Amino acid sequence: MLSDWIIEKNRFDIEDIEKHGSKFLLGNGFMGYRGTMEEYSAEQLVAVNLAGFFDLAQNSNWRESVNAPNPLYTVLTVDGINLDLSTLNPVSHSQRLDIKCGIHNRKTQFSVNGVNITITAERFVSMTRENIIALKYTVITDKDITVTLKSGIDKNVWNISGNHLNYLDEITNGNFFKLNCETVQLKNKLEVYETVIGLDDCVNEDLLHKATINLKANEEFEFVKFGGIYHSDSLENSHNNFLDAVKVGYDEIKNEHISAWEQIWENSDVIIEGDDDAQLALRYSIYHLCSIAPHNTDKCGIPARGLSGQVYKGAAFWDTEMFMLPFFQFSDKKAARNLLKYRINTLEGAKRKAKEFGFEGAFFAWESQETGDDACTLFNVTDVFTNRPQRTYFKDKQIHVSADIVFAMWDYCRTTGDYSLLVDGGLDLMYECMWFFYTYSVFKPHKNRYEILDVVGPDEYHERVNNNAFTNVMVKSAVDIFIRAIDKVKNIYPEYFASFDKELNWVYDFSEKLYVPQPNEKGIIEQFDGYFTLEDTTPEILKTRELIKNEYWGGHGLASNTMVLKQADVIMMLNVFKSAYSTEIKKLNWDFYEPYTEHGSSLSACAYAIVAAEIGYTDWAYKYFMKTASVDLTGDTKQYLGSLYIGGTHPAANGGAWNTAIFGFAGVSVTDDTLDISPRIPKNWNSLSFKLNWKGEELNIKITDDKVLIDGIVNSSVTVYGKEY
Amino acid sequence: MLSDWIIEKNRFDIEDIEKHGSKFLLGNGFMGYRGTMEEYSAEQLVAVNLAGFFDLAQNSNWRESVNAPNPLYTVLTVDGINLDLSTLNPVSHSQRLDIKCGIHNRKTQFSVNGVNITITAERFVSMTRENIIALKYTVITDKDITVTLKSGIDKNVWNISGNHLNYLDEITNGNFFKLNCETVQLKNKLEVYETVIGLDDCVNEDLLHKATINLKANEEFEFVKFGGIYHSDSLENSHNNFLDAVKVGYDEIKNEHISAWEQIWENSDVIIEGDDDAQLALRYSIYHLCSIAPHNTDKCGIPARGLSGQVYKGAAFWDTEMFMLPFFQFSDKKAARNLLKYRINTLEGAKRKAKEFGFEGAFFAWESQETGDDACTLFNVTDVFTNRPQRTYFKDKQIHVSADIVFAMWDYCRTTGDYSLLVDGGLDLMYECMWFFYTYSVFKPHKNRYEILDVVGPDEYHERVNNNAFTNVMVKSAVDIFIRAIDKVKNIYPEYFASFDKELNWVYDFSEKLYVPQPNEKGIIEQFDGYFTLEDTTPEILKTRELIKNEYWGGHGLASNTMVLKQADVIMMLNVFKSAYSTEIKKLNWDFYEPYTEHGSSLSACAYAIVAAEIGYTDWAYKYFMKTASVDLTGDTKQYLGSLYIGGTHPAANGGAWNTAIFGFAGVSVTDDTLDISPRIPKNWNSLSFKLNWKGEELNIKITDDKVLIDGIVNSSVTVYGKEY
Repeated sequence: MLSDWIIEKNRFDIEDIEKHGSKFLLGNGFMGYRGTMEEYSAEQLVAVNLAGFFDLAQNSNWRESVNAPNPLYTVLTVDGINLDLSTLNPVSHSQRLDIKCGIHNRKTQFSVNGVNITITAERFVSMTRENIIALKYTVITDKDITVTLKSGIDKNVWNISGNHLNYLDEITNGNFFKLNCETVQLKNKLEVYETVIGLDDCVNEDLLHKATINLKANEEFEFVKFGGIYHSDSLENSHNNFLDAVKVGYDEIKNEHISAWEQIWENSDVIIEGDDDAQLALRYSIYHLCSIAPHNTDKCGIPARGLSGQVYKGAAFWDTEMFMLPFFQFSDKKAARNLLKYRINTLEGAKRKAKEFGFEGAFFAWESQETGDDACTLFNVTDVFTNRPQRTYFKDKQIHVSADIVFAMWDYCRTTGDYSLLVDGGLDLMYECMWFFYTYSVFKPHKNRYEILDVVGPDEYHERVNNNAFTNVMVKSAVDIFIRAIDKVKNIYPEYFASFDKELNWVYDFSEKLYVPQPNEKGIIEQFDGYFTLEDTTPEILKTRELIKNEYWGGHGLASNTMVLKQADVIMMLNVFKSAYSTEIKKLNWDFYEPYTEHGSSLSACAYAIVAAEIGYTDWAYKYFMKTASVDLTGDTKQYLGSLYIGGTHPAANGGAWNTAIFGFAGVSVTDDTLDISPRIPKNWNSLSFKLNWKGEELNIKITDDKVLIDGIVNSSVTVYGKEY
Repeated sequence: MLSDWIIEKNRFDIEDIEKHGSKFLLGNGFMGYRGTMEEYSAEQLVAVNLAGFFDLAQNSNWRESVNAPNPLYTVLTVDGINLDLSTLNPVSHSQRLDIKCGIHNRKTQFSVNGVNITITAERFVSMTRENIIALKYTVITDKDITVTLKSGIDKNVWNISGNHLNYLDEITNGNFFKLNCETVQLKNKLEVYETVIGLDDCVNEDLLHKATINLKANEEFEFVKFGGIYHSDSLENSHNNFLDAVKVGYDEIKNEHISAWEQIWENSDVIIEGDDDAQLALRYSIYHLCSIAPHNTDKCGIPARGLSGQVYKGAAFWDTEMFMLPFFQFSDKKAARNLLKYRINTLEGAKRKAKEFGFEGAFFAWESQETGDDACTLFNVTDVFTNRPQRTYFKDKQIHVSADIVFAMWDYCRTTGDYSLLVDGGLDLMYECMWFFYTYSVFKPHKNRYEILDVVGPDEYHERVNNNAFTNVMVKSAVDIFIRAIDKVKNIYPEYFASFDKELNWVYDFSEKLYVPQPNEKGIIEQFDGYFTLEDTTPEILKTRELIKNEYWGGHGLASNTMVLKQADVIMMLNVFKSAYSTEIKKLNWDFYEPYTEHGSSLSACAYAIVAAEIGYTDWAYKYFMKTASVDLTGDTKQYLGSLYIGGTHPAANGGAWNTAIFGFAGVSVTDDTLDISPRIPKNWNSLSFKLNWKGEELNIKITDDKVLIDGIVNSSVTVYGKEY
């Protein structure tokens, strides 16, 4: 059904410009291209956002990802009037994204002095040639008129924290442009190529092709345009790479691109029969994950806002490992490995961070860029009452990220069967992370146990807490994983292990004596020491106490001395360690924590959804699934905080939607040797079908109300409801 | 010289009413009587403030000390006009406090309709009969007139947090009144007696004696008045006690009182020749200490605002042990022992507090009342920007108080030679305090040391810091004291020790491995981990950043992310452990920390003064000494925070003044066996003379520019500049 693949808006609303920039995003892991119009510029938040390419603007307090000059810039002028959707009301307008093949279309009819002019544009960010973006631009009018066209590279780049590029020189060769740039801070080179085909008699100046075109009534005028963006390793062969794309031509490149997307969907589609809304939302989530995955590089993670812009500095968070990685493990092993290799490649930055805060080992960045040094600042919020920078503890206390990475690495190994990552730096990373936790933890002799004090858990509204259950359990899990990884490497890579010259006695003591909070007599696991002594209130009540709308609830704000949490914390733990807790405990804690949870983060709803599915709260599970899966489809999130743009896509929620479908509704769970499927799909779903790549073998799974069909099982370690299949 | 003993003001300024209430305070350790006029009431902050007697008003958030109804209330009316200094401008007025004998006088001339009426009143709070206050009231006019007199018990009691007394019944018997009250919370009984002598033909009703008096021109009319206040143990014999005082009569009781004060001064006077200002300020400080010392009870400590009112809830802080106790140890052993015994008596409260916060042993209250439970709340400040209660960490993180008490207990023992306190609960208290610190501290295996994390040091502007140097050194000192105390008890009380059935191995490990911050390569001791990374600025600069005058700098306020400190912290440590640090280190740290110090607490200046004296910064020492010694004399401290009264006396500063004179200028220092005198007195002082009671023997010491004269040495362990004398 077509509508399962098409995102469309057939009306123009000026207030949607920023929202649609994210909603109609194109990307290929190397760059993201926002869903803006060809005639837009910085003011409309056009961005060619680059993965893993960062800069510090002058007088700025933070480094952020770089946006490249836009080589698709094109504007028509009629009678001195720019056909610019942001300034000129259209007769009609539609914008459309085909997520099956990653192609963006717009069609806009303007009327100027009684003449109707219709612009049609199609573009894509090539999934086969990561540096290439291509555009086909068509104009048709109902009367003979003369129009002026300007098309080229727009150097007016939107930036959040300031200018990132010095323009070194501009090269014009016929209809070819090349703009050489360097970043402000580190003088890293960036090259932007552009050419047009089908525009003759242009004046080429200032990186613009200017042409006067006599349009005949009802005769289509069309040209195509290529852009090429190059930095880092891709600089070497940029010229040839770009010329080759131009030579191959628009249609052929588009076909390549469509085929690549077909292959992606072949590996990753999840089919829901009987629920079109859920189907579209889930596919749209998968589309985003595939658009931003680092297919060809292990030099960068996935930013928290994907490639939709510079929000959150283009940095990677724990979101990647805990929310997105499962999807890639099962559908795109190469991207999954790249993501983990990126962490291995940034280990030195994590070691520098540990040292900076007085610890040893590897303390991974809260906001990680290309070096692994932390892009997060100690003052991440502005106090709305005083306008003073507010000390926050995301950077120095949210230590679980190092455990999340260890956990994810092991999960990758056991899911893909690829344990080679361990000897490609993985075991060393695990060692450094565990040593960090050992130096961070404290031993309480009178209790004969290690405790983890002074942390921030997933719920960021409560800072500097002791023995956060999620953190302690993650660390305990990570140390046990490290022990298993040691054994694994000892067995299958004995020479490597022989050279792994580390004293390890402490690991076993740490594992044995690390305190793990347990359910109390009512079955509730306390989120952290003393949580139960806080004021018992709800997000709804706190909302009524706000003095300034949307004032920050964390820090010394409204929530910090109450039981209200920003996002799933204990429930996140139950979700991650599903087999460690009984259904009864999960129910008790879900019931207990749900009313306190604001879901003020896009990481929250999916954790509640998955656990709800497990415990049979199917209606709740469906509600939170749809909330997670539609976050970027509705786009109904805040776009601005004051004058600061905070919009963009939510890849963690996209991953969370897939996780809910697969781990929640399909009930897939993985241990070191077994994959179990215990489905509980919503009543209105006729079936749920998907493919999993498990230990190198493809499993095609179809779940209906009363059946589980599995194709391609190669060994007996797949179980259904715990029984061998 | 008379002026060395007299505090006087010969003019009336209405804005001084609150200030003078504290400045002209009378007290005897059982009660304080504010320096208000006889005709004043609650509005003028009249208070008969009771030591160690507490109540929680309805709808109040905190318990505070109780003010008794005022039995000295007296007002004259002429032609319908009340002769009330707060409403009627006087012709002349003087108020005077003789600190040599603790007697308050006022003389006020009013003019009404051409008649001059002069009121003279003398009162004292008996130093020999702690329940008794007495007043002699005299009127003289220049014309024959008829006046109306009302005198009795004023039930209109000033309270900060709400009403504390239910009035049960009023008994009238001739000119005798008795008011039976009970506290609101715990229904504790309080009795107020009153009688007048020399007032005949009164109408006695509503606890007022009402009389119409025909005054003859220039003929003095006089009467006397007794009040009696009884609660707790003193209830038993209240009736007889009060009648006996009345029977003995005003003059005799006054003589008793004067003799008692003479004896106090005999033991505690410090004479400065050549500097009248310093002399008066120091004597005035000593006067306050003697007025509020618990001479006859071990059921209460000294409140942080003395007996001047309910500010700080009438609770005792670490101020007592670290700032006041040295004075009592050397001049009034009984009071010193009572103060420490009070801590022993409240050990159970301290154990309850430790348990409440998840620890074991004894965590003494930050604000201690009669049970030792903490009167401090977790929300001790109101955010001026939001008017919301602000989470503060005075209560749960300022743990050094338990170490301060252990330290003081040992200091008492070695100074007085009275080690019996150790077997009177002292050793047990030490054990519980040290066990508390052991359960609070953490062991860091990779560093092989104990650390003390998450505390607030003396500098309250920096909350939740790690390894605060002062705290760690205090705890290390306390554990070493405990070890010495064990040995001492083992030696001199072997039977007691035999019954002291505790496992003690941990004590030695704790002592050996507790981390004590050391001077860095520049000789500076870091106040806490990471202090040097904070913003380098000054109190003067912070002042310019205030958005609201006097906004709170702690918590998330202006100082918390800067190096600015509220009060001596490292310097307090150098002051307490003078022999552990070289003069060079003291100088480097004094120079380093002084510019960062706001001195926003009355505990700060004396620490800077004492260390300054030790390192030869005599001018600085003198400046800070005078600041400390005059704090209640000038009264130039804030009286209100918003509508909340925060004025009162400053006993810690009073003690600090004495400490500066004796330990700073006279250079007295005590070890377990030796008392050394290494004087460095200000140039303008001809001599400094004082008496010390050391190990039960009196030493009379006189220091001049070039000589140290000591009378009464009984053994050779007194040294001068480290040499035997």
